[in-house]
Amino acid sequence: MENQNKSDIGLIGLAVMGENLALNMADKGWNVSVYNRTVPGVEEGVVQRFTGGRARGKSIEGFTDIAGFVASVAVPRKIMMMVRAGSAVDELMEQLFPLLSEGDILIDGGNSNYEDTDRRVMLAEKKGFRFIGAGVSGGEEGALNGASIMPGGSASAWPEVKSVLQSIAAKASDGTPCCDWIGPASSGHFVKMIHNGIEYGDMQLIAEAYWVMKKLLGLDNEQMADIFARWNEGKLRSYLTEITAGILRHKDKAGGYLIDKILDAAGQKGTGKWSVINAMELGMPLGLIATAVFERSLSAQKSLRDAASRQFAGQRLQAVYNKPEMIQDIHSALYASKLVSYAQGFAVLQRASDAFGWQLDLASIARMWRGGCIIRSAFLNDIAAAFQAQDKAGIPRHLLLAPYFKNEIQQQLPGWKHLVMQSMKEELPVPAFSSALNYFYSLVSAKLPANMIQAQRDYFGAHTFERTDELRGLFFHENWTGRGGETKSGTYNV
Amino acid sequence: MENQNKSDIGLIGLAVMGENLALNMADKGWNVSVYNRTVPGVEEGVVQRFTGGRARGKSIEGFTDIAGFVASVAVPRKIMMMVRAGSAVDELMEQLFPLLSEGDILIDGGNSNYEDTDRRVMLAEKKGFRFIGAGVSGGEEGALNGASIMPGGSASAWPEVKSVLQSIAAKASDGTPCCDWIGPASSGHFVKMIHNGIEYGDMQLIAEAYWVMKKLLGLDNEQMADIFARWNEGKLRSYLTEITAGILRHKDKAGGYLIDKILDAAGQKGTGKWSVINAMELGMPLGLIATAVFERSLSAQKSLRDAASRQFAGQRLQAVYNKPEMIQDIHSALYASKLVSYAQGFAVLQRASDAFGWQLDLASIARMWRGGCIIRSAFLNDIAAAFQAQDKAGIPRHLLLAPYFKNEIQQQLPGWKHLVMQSMKEELPVPAFSSALNYFYSLVSAKLPANMIQAQRDYFGAHTFERTDELRGLFFHENWTGRGGETKSGTYNV
Repeated sequence: MENQNKSDIGLIGLAVMGENLALNMADKGWNVSVYNRTVPGVEEGVVQRFTGGRARGKSIEGFTDIAGFVASVAVPRKIMMMVRAGSAVDELMEQLFPLLSEGDILIDGGNSNYEDTDRRVMLAEKKGFRFIGAGVSGGEEGALNGASIMPGGSASAWPEVKSVLQSIAAKASDGTPCCDWIGPASSGHFVKMIHNGIEYGDMQLIAEAYWVMKKLLGLDNEQMADIFARWNEGKLRSYLTEITAGILRHKDKAGGYLIDKILDAAGQKGTGKWSVINAMELGMPLGLIATAVFERSLSAQKSLRDAASRQFAGQRLQAVYNKPEMIQDIHSALYASKLVSYAQGFAVLQRASDAFGWQLDLASIARMWRGGCIIRSAFLNDIAAAFQAQDKAGIPRHLLLAPYFKNEIQQQLPGWKHLVMQSMKEELPVPAFSSALNYFYSLVSAKLPANMIQAQRDYFGAHTFERTDELRGLFFHENWTGRGGETKSGTYNV
Repeated sequence: MENQNKSDIGLIGLAVMGENLALNMADKGWNVSVYNRTVPGVEEGVVQRFTGGRARGKSIEGFTDIAGFVASVAVPRKIMMMVRAGSAVDELMEQLFPLLSEGDILIDGGNSNYEDTDRRVMLAEKKGFRFIGAGVSGGEEGALNGASIMPGGSASAWPEVKSVLQSIAAKASDGTPCCDWIGPASSGHFVKMIHNGIEYGDMQLIAEAYWVMKKLLGLDNEQMADIFARWNEGKLRSYLTEITAGILRHKDKAGGYLIDKILDAAGQKGTGKWSVINAMELGMPLGLIATAVFERSLSAQKSLRDAASRQFAGQRLQAVYNKPEMIQDIHSALYASKLVSYAQGFAVLQRASDAFGWQLDLASIARMWRGGCIIRSAFLNDIAAAFQAQDKAGIPRHLLLAPYFKNEIQQQLPGWKHLVMQSMKEELPVPAFSSALNYFYSLVSAKLPANMIQAQRDYFGAHTFERTDELRGLFFHENWTGRGGETKSGTYNV
């Protein structure tokens, strides 16, 4: 009785993502309460504008007072927060706590730092509530028409929110919703963070492919659009490939190609950088995404680049290449580098899973990313299959060790290598293609020159080393100069 | 009178660095009190072993109780802490506070996280004490015979500690002590952090040079040692070049070359990774050091590399190169990549200085690194001169814009480029040489393909972009599909 005339779910925060998620929920038959704070002069009339506008006639009720909003939702309440990541989430939670009932469920659908989510899950549970950190990818389109949703946190909340979240999720080509339970604590937000890092990598790789076509082959926007559109029918079929073709063809109101009028200074909001930072904390290489993050930073240093380009007048590019062959090489470089990037990203997920006891199902995560999200692609089907096969065979999960991808990468190698070599020759930056190629060469090296690094560290810092002729785990110090003490390193850290 | 028979300075923590610094101070005529905690079964008899051993007959007095130790130091006390970075420093400070007098000076000589140092400077000053976060580089040798010391924090403490710290610092070839005041707050530890990051980069670059000589040219250890020794007479003259030659020649007790018996799994203790993380937080590219950190992580994944190398049987390396020419190319790659790495590192220092109001003197920092520390080199003279010239001319500080280095890098470019191309062809990883070359190509590009990244971000996330035909700072959103709303991005962060 108490839930009569109550909404199925509440949603807080009516920026573009919040609005679209509410519309999506309403379209799936849910009654939705929405709330946005009212800040005079800043966020005034947001709720009215939405309920009187895009939400008109839908099962969406607007509130400008938070108590009324909370009271309008059926218990146990499901309240999804779509506010700016950071302190705004904490402040909102403090406002909500006195208004909630035991067992109510808060869902943070923003791009929160996973360590914040760990803290919030514990805090909410201590107060008798439940908390889900849900990564949501798909941008405005996905929010409206089906997103990829990665929920983790209070496990008992999953059966309660499953039907709503899966209803607004995208469906993969086989009909599976792109939303499933990730695991405990902050695992949902961690997985979303790595998703975003991979997105940074994919975007950088496409940018490099575009640049080689334009600068080395001299192709025009329509020609390049045709190539990306063709690639979108093959193994590189993906949302980002598709929109790249669309972007290249797009003309602005003045009639020119918009791409040529967009300034080459990339912005970023933090999740790419967080992926790299957390990979570093876990001791895992994530070089391709790091390269993408750094390249965005460097792109933003416009005046420095202007000054440097005036100093170093580069060689004239000579478009003397066999175009069809070179386009095939670009395809190889893009495909193989993308594979390296996903292998690195999933390896970080595996390490996090081991470190935090999350028991992540990598195949399931790959399947969740097949639809709705920015990195959705055909390729993720193959990734899910590769992990599933590795699980079945009981061997460690690593994409580049999967037989299918081993063959794929071997086929790409000649073109990939050739493209990087030619770009280096022509003084054209392909930092992510290069980073991926070097990672691949290092990965398949049974020996690397890290023995020299260990020798140096022991020489100047007594850091000790392992030996090839002794068991692993035994560490040795050499008195290299005949002068140093026998004391091993304690304080000095390098 | 109260300071009669008191020590000039106290030192806490008798691991290798602490011991050697105490001996160094005593050799310079200072009376030193030393203290180490006594943990039964773990750190027992440390003090006695030192005072009865290496410190015997020197002006060093040992204490096993901290109160007696503090009381033995002349006021205002100078107490240098050489303990493990992290909570051990905080715990030690809590123990010390009740024993100190107003104006006493704590010096943290460990590799503390700079944010911890910010906090500690404030805490100590609030209690009426002074605090210096001092980066100390040089390993055990440097600690004993002259280190590079980078002190920052409570400015009023500098005149009091200057004579002690400069006396134990290394002297550059012109006689200047490699220790000077860095700036306020945590600036000393921040500079030391970047120093260590640069050290990671230098070591990775040398490892790659070694690897190309060994794998592509088939040189033996003595031949390689000869080359490094020869390079140590030229522009690459540096401590790390010198010890690399020594390492290559070094034989162990069994009579074989030790370098060939050291396992290629590199360790790391955190300051390299911190450099990268903080560069990312500041939005600055630091790709070479990131590559070095990731390559160490990958080297440590021995069993993964073993499995991968069995799957991908690489091509046989063909040593068909003109050796003298190729050795010259390796020299070019090493020198130019090193220049890129220093340019990136100093650019991060400049950004931190701007962000935190430290007013760092980059030329002075370069001079401080000329002696004592692990990265000491002739090259740092040129760097100091380049920054000084830029300051004089009132132009922004960036190494690659300095006329001297512009010429240097232009001379290295053909060989550098050739070496990276050949290594890619031969499937030999040179991740840091490649990363540096790609950074250089990007830096000197007036245009980069970041326009595509901005278009994509606006397409899927309404993130807006700047236009080449409009003023900087104006942001535009395009309705790319004719379907999306006009709402700009609020919550969704990519």
